[in-house]
Amino acid sequence: MSQQAEPIQRMAEELAKLPGIGRKTAQRLAYHLAAQPLEAVRALAFALAEGRESIRLCTRCGNYTAGELCAVCADPRRRQDILCVVRDPRDVAAMERINDYHGLYHVLHGILSPMDGVGPQDIRIRELMDRLKGQEVSELILATNPDIEGEATAAYIARLAKPLGIRVTRIAHGVPVGSDLEYTDEVTLSKAMEGRREL
Amino acid sequence: MSQQAEPIQRMAEELAKLPGIGRKTAQRLAYHLAAQPLEAVRALAFALAEGRESIRLCTRCGNYTAGELCAVCADPRRRQDILCVVRDPRDVAAMERINDYHGLYHVLHGILSPMDGVGPQDIRIRELMDRLKGQEVSELILATNPDIEGEATAAYIARLAKPLGIRVTRIAHGVPVGSDLEYTDEVTLSKAMEGRREL
Repeated sequence: MSQQAEPIQRMAEELAKLPGIGRKTAQRLAYHLAAQPLEAVRALAFALAEGRESIRLCTRCGNYTAGELCAVCADPRRRQDILCVVRDPRDVAAMERINDYHGLYHVLHGILSPMDGVGPQDIRIRELMDRLKGQEVSELILATNPDIEGEATAAYIARLAKPLGIRVTRIAHGVPVGSDLEYTDEVTLSKAMEGRREL
Repeated sequence: MSQQAEPIQRMAEELAKLPGIGRKTAQRLAYHLAAQPLEAVRALAFALAEGRESIRLCTRCGNYTAGELCAVCADPRRRQDILCVVRDPRDVAAMERINDYHGLYHVLHGILSPMDGVGPQDIRIRELMDRLKGQEVSELILATNPDIEGEATAAYIARLAKPLGIRVTRIAHGVPVGSDLEYTDEVTLSKAMEGRREL
């Protein structure tokens, strides 16, 4: 809208590029920032630019870190012989929230997706194989998402890792805790039946 | 969480200060930005900091502008003798969207609220009175929000402006177009009855 001050428009345009931030929300945020003290907006801008600049990938697992190793890899109390394979650094954060896993991670930074032209060489599978060959691993847990790409990627990695004599496991599929059977989709329900355990 | 890379935490903390952005959304956005090219994040940071820095208040009406006068005040086709009083610059944007108002604005940058310690000297009421005394105004439209503070502010300004012989009007209260009578609150419905017009 030509009636809007140009700086507001520029701010809103950039904010609207963020996921989940539509044109209206971006505009609301831009007006909010316009009414904030200059210092507060500078602090936000600095945190974003400087934060992005200082992010490195952990040289061992590929998780985000500001240093050489991520907090998990640098922790000597973690079990070094269990690796959990995830797609993104945010999946590491999700796993860490359960406070129940004490091994290490391997972050793929992507998922196999022939439709999108993503092959094994585009994600950190070679780095994973190097780790598996270079260190004693007693269990490799495949924790990619339970969708088509996640399953295919897990199957692909399992085929590569098993010949090395490593125990390869996959996280369980089933009915989420707190959910309602009536509203659970058929595939999940069938996986839950398939994976049933004796009590 | 100590398991999260520190830059991610700093980004998320700053983003969570934005209105409507909770801790979870802020974290999701931080992870998103971490995966973006450095240049894209720098462009966002620059647009915010530089945008905020270049925002001025229109010396005439108080609307946001990058220059001396805002786009509305600088437009010679606008009627100079009608003023519409609004609370925020974003209300100017809302009014402009109807494409039906051709006068000027006056932005109060706040609303009278004794509970929050906001008095007449804290918002741009003196500037409004100066304008009313300094130029020919045939109509003063009070378009503050239809809530307690908005009504009180409108009443306060009306009391000051009427002795100057200026026609003072208030935007209509009533049933929003497309809404359902059944779900309209009683006060709005009673205002709609009160303001009924002959067809």
